[in-house]
Amino acid sequence: MTRTVAVPAPEASVSADDLTRVAVSTVIFSLRRRPADDAPVLVLPLVRRTRDPYEGLWALPGGWLDHRESLDAAARRTLAETTALAPSYLEQLYAFGAVDRSPSRVVSIVYWALLRADEVDASAADAPENVEWFAAASLPRLAFDHNEIVDYALWRLRNKVGYSRIAHGLLPDEFTLADLREVYEAILGRRLDPANFRRQVENSGTLIPTDHFRTGSHRPARLYRYNRDVELADRGPLDTH
Amino acid sequence: MTRTVAVPAPEASVSADDLTRVAVSTVIFSLRRRPADDAPVLVLPLVRRTRDPYEGLWALPGGWLDHRESLDAAARRTLAETTALAPSYLEQLYAFGAVDRSPSRVVSIVYWALLRADEVDASAADAPENVEWFAAASLPRLAFDHNEIVDYALWRLRNKVGYSRIAHGLLPDEFTLADLREVYEAILGRRLDPANFRRQVENSGTLIPTDHFRTGSHRPARLYRYNRDVELADRGPLDTH
Repeated sequence: MTRTVAVPAPEASVSADDLTRVAVSTVIFSLRRRPADDAPVLVLPLVRRTRDPYEGLWALPGGWLDHRESLDAAARRTLAETTALAPSYLEQLYAFGAVDRSPSRVVSIVYWALLRADEVDASAADAPENVEWFAAASLPRLAFDHNEIVDYALWRLRNKVGYSRIAHGLLPDEFTLADLREVYEAILGRRLDPANFRRQVENSGTLIPTDHFRTGSHRPARLYRYNRDVELADRGPLDTH
Repeated sequence: MTRTVAVPAPEASVSADDLTRVAVSTVIFSLRRRPADDAPVLVLPLVRRTRDPYEGLWALPGGWLDHRESLDAAARRTLAETTALAPSYLEQLYAFGAVDRSPSRVVSIVYWALLRADEVDASAADAPENVEWFAAASLPRLAFDHNEIVDYALWRLRNKVGYSRIAHGLLPDEFTLADLREVYEAILGRRLDPANFRRQVENSGTLIPTDHFRTGSHRPARLYRYNRDVELADRGPLDTH
């Protein structure tokens, strides 16, 4: 079956060979404590596909770009529609456009964001039932090239954590050095020496000690907050596209 | 005037409202010495448009994505076709998709690369006559949102020069600390203190002193090369998309 469409000329005249569609997908990372040992692990939401291609497989939340919306708006809309999540800040990650990544030609503009656990919990009641959170380190086989996309997002996250305040997106406003170290450990997938970590962070000038302490079963731990005077390395001069 | 196109169903069925086309554009930065004071300045090639929209204005080299080629391949092909330039490494920069950035709806996947002056000179004879190099700091009004795209590329370049070996893309294999400082100064658009710069670079572990010196009208200056054992921060695990 074919159908005909009216195309305004001359700028947008196309032949069938030119038909490339644009989609958006979003990788949302959060932290969840593993019941076995209470260690935080990186998790992300996936949506089970209800139609071909790849019916029944898990995929990143996303959808088609609408002709009348910006890329950012499309990422926000499709994420809300598929998962009910609404991060305050979505960042464009990469455009994936391999010729064979889908049965038809699709270029996917991929966004990513970090969400604190309490932000995830706040929208959990509204999430459709075909959404589940998976540990980033042990994903099933995903639809399309979405395993590769998640691998790329993890690589970028691991790179960025070294030179920016990106871990802040997973922490409350005030946190202990142990909280911060656990975020780094979850992102990097390895243990860090507590004394070395404390020294590096204190030398970086990115944290400000507060007068508050967390008390509990351990000895009191000082709470810190991020120094907002230190320039974010990963925010651009552009707000919207 | 309208024309009709045959669209295979069901995967790629579209209505006219869905028609978004994908283009690629490339920002190529190089350095050229300013005749007035011999200082190196950042330059980039632009192509004068020979048809509407924006006929007669300068634009970034680029073109339409072909249905059968990857994004990287399209960037390479359109760059070669419009400028005869062939950088060894093109990196994807950002996807620009504002609704009103073109009379019709176009999402542009933008690539960027750095080219040494000798690489530019090698292909100069093959460049079409509607190509010219402009100082990045004083561009005319460009077609589409290309001024904004160049501003974004400059912002990313200035950010990256701080945490990666990106300046290497503008230097020969061996160079003096003054050569390297001049590259940083051209990218950052400001003078750097030579003694501070030397100290920072020597502490970074990214350079290896060689046994070679450059001689000439000044006192001999030691030549350095990049330490390839230091991981590049900006190369991903992915080769092609």
